[in-house]
Amino acid sequence: MSVITLLTDFGEYYPGVMKGVILKLNPNATIVDITHGVEPQNVLQGAFLLYHAYRYFPSATHLAVVDPGVGSERRAIAVFTENHVFIAPDNGIAYPAAAEDGIVSIAEIDYSISELVGELSSTFHGRDVFAPAAALIAAGRREYLSEVDEMERLEIFDATVEGEAVECSIVFVDRFGNLVTNLKAEQVKGKGFICNGVEFPLVRTYSDVDVGEPLSLIGSFNTLELSVRNGSAAELLGIKKGGVRIELEVLV
Amino acid sequence: MSVITLLTDFGEYYPGVMKGVILKLNPNATIVDITHGVEPQNVLQGAFLLYHAYRYFPSATHLAVVDPGVGSERRAIAVFTENHVFIAPDNGIAYPAAAEDGIVSIAEIDYSISELVGELSSTFHGRDVFAPAAALIAAGRREYLSEVDEMERLEIFDATVEGEAVECSIVFVDRFGNLVTNLKAEQVKGKGFICNGVEFPLVRTYSDVDVGEPLSLIGSFNTLELSVRNGSAAELLGIKKGGVRIELEVLV
Amino acid sequence: MSVITLLTDFGEYYPGVMKGVILKLNPNATIVDITHGVEPQNVLQGAFLLYHAYRYFPSATHLAVVDPGVGSERRAIAVFTENHVFIAPDNGIAYPAAAEDGIVSIAEIDYSISELVGELSSTFHGRDVFAPAAALIAAGRREYLSEVDEMERLEIFDATVEGEAVECSIVFVDRFGNLVTNLKAEQVKGKGFICNGVEFPLVRTYSDVDVGEPLSLIGSFNTLELSVRNGSAAELLGIKKGGVRIELEVLV
Repeated sequence: MSVITLLTDFGEYYPGVMKGVILKLNPNATIVDITHGVEPQNVLQGAFLLYHAYRYFPSATHLAVVDPGVGSERRAIAVFTENHVFIAPDNGIAYPAAAEDGIVSIAEIDYSISELVGELSSTFHGRDVFAPAAALIAAGRREYLSEVDEMERLEIFDATVEGEAVECSIVFVDRFGNLVTNLKAEQVKGKGFICNGVEFPLVRTYSDVDVGEPLSLIGSFNTLELSVRNGSAAELLGIKKGGVRIELEVLV
Repeated sequence: MSVITLLTDFGEYYPGVMKGVILKLNPNATIVDITHGVEPQNVLQGAFLLYHAYRYFPSATHLAVVDPGVGSERRAIAVFTENHVFIAPDNGIAYPAAAEDGIVSIAEIDYSISELVGELSSTFHGRDVFAPAAALIAAGRREYLSEVDEMERLEIFDATVEGEAVECSIVFVDRFGNLVTNLKAEQVKGKGFICNGVEFPLVRTYSDVDVGEPLSLIGSFNTLELSVRNGSAAELLGIKKGGVRIELEVLV
Repeated sequence: MSVITLLTDFGEYYPGVMKGVILKLNPNATIVDITHGVEPQNVLQGAFLLYHAYRYFPSATHLAVVDPGVGSERRAIAVFTENHVFIAPDNGIAYPAAAEDGIVSIAEIDYSISELVGELSSTFHGRDVFAPAAALIAAGRREYLSEVDEMERLEIFDATVEGEAVECSIVFVDRFGNLVTNLKAEQVKGKGFICNGVEFPLVRTYSDVDVGEPLSLIGSFNTLELSVRNGSAAELLGIKKGGVRIELEVLV
């Protein structure tokens, strides 16, 4: 069994077409959607979500396409790591995951791989370049690859803590309206945080506060999350999307 | 082949991570999404949708996680029934389905099962507890389980009919704006229903009324549904979510 | 391996139930979602998306259900083509794809096939008729079928070009707000298009204009698309759904 995962900002339909391409070239692939709901063109969010997902999979080929530069000069790459392979545009989306797992080698994917699909559009390399690359590589084939030295890097953990002043990013807003930050667990201190004038006491779990009350906790990404019990911190603070820089004051 | 189904209120991303956990522990599992669109924390809706879905599957392990109590004292359980296994928080979500199929035994899942994942967060037991439990149980393994006597019960059919007065719940609003109630087919009588002043004549199928006209019928859940042909009853009545109690007047 | 694809306007949940039905009758099926996000009752959009997706799959059974006539007299059909099988309501949704691949024979599906599911609702033939048909046909079984001569036809390419005046349809609005038209690549000429007073210069790829600027290009459907680089043409023009007829003026 070869597992191929998909993480994109494509929403509906386009991923279905990519699965056709993959199955045509690699009928034995087990295709798993991680998400197709990355916010459009939010490469950092894609990198953050991939970094926190890949580790739960068995050895797999991870296809990650959030690609504002599609059709431009940016390269398509395959990154071979200790336990996985990452296939992505060379915009840093795969870097945090690949670096953590241990990069063994990096290859550029030649666009001529699109001949296996029959076309090379300027808007949908997910179908024409990345899907056939994933199909072949998951089957152990290495055509269309040429080794390169470097890949684009991207830093997903850039929160700063100075005294009681924290600066970090809301990276991901989930369906419950939880605001997932990139402030790492080991950077968290104090009795909670104030954000835009609202107090978010630091607790262990949602049920430590009353229904409807704000709270903060170390969530499943092992970073700080701002939440409202059975409610939505996204609504409370008016933050509906990731990619927002916020300032927090530590409650001492 | 072991089929594992997933039904959650997680929306995007989180289910993808759960699939990684499952495939790592049980590479032969066939994972099927029932839905990840249950309204946040709507346990009753989850129970209703699971009850009407499980019966169409071959013998399977059904993972159902709508879990407002995650991180609190509520137990994680596995319910073995005549033809299926249900894995869920012990909040009643699996009860209607399990009871109908015939409960054979109930087991509590020890949280130490999270050692197979490597962590136990206080917010994402879908990943840390339920996914590994499903993977193991679908493979016929019974570690981390200890038999218990009881599980939480939940009643999804609580509609009342007195003369021409009906009280029932909108349990589910589908993508077409159909309002799915929990009034069972055998409770339906008369020539239709009035809801909030709007007449919904009882018909056999959508095309029995003109395009844009309201109607009521026995839908695919074998309960009463309020609809608008090629339109949206949800918009007409301003009911956008399940969990709403409504009063209907029978048209005689 | 038998691949069964699903394309519907069902959104969440209903497709999960269909997968149960399929796996119960055909445990070896590999089920792939093309999309469940077709706009409600938009048969033309379903036909357009299926036409542009099926070709990327290996030989497969394609189930396409956008079905405003469910419960009425419309037939359920299976269309056997050179390399694929299409199963759909007889409303034209499968016609463009089937015609292109080469129709070999057409069969009506007898509604009594619902006996394999155990019920025949008047609202969900996806579950009661089409899913069991796909399961059996993908397994090479031909019960419940009787050959017929004709199927409904549907024309998805009806754009007209007269001098500098173009009339075409927005068929699909994707998650990025790209407006996908049915103006074929070979009908495209000039230096761009004016739509509702906005100029969309014709370029090869998004990065040929500045971020935030409108553009037009031949997209992955091999038709004209109106876009905004890293933005949304749907928002710019106030067109949020497919099925809109538009007039374009060619820039010479």
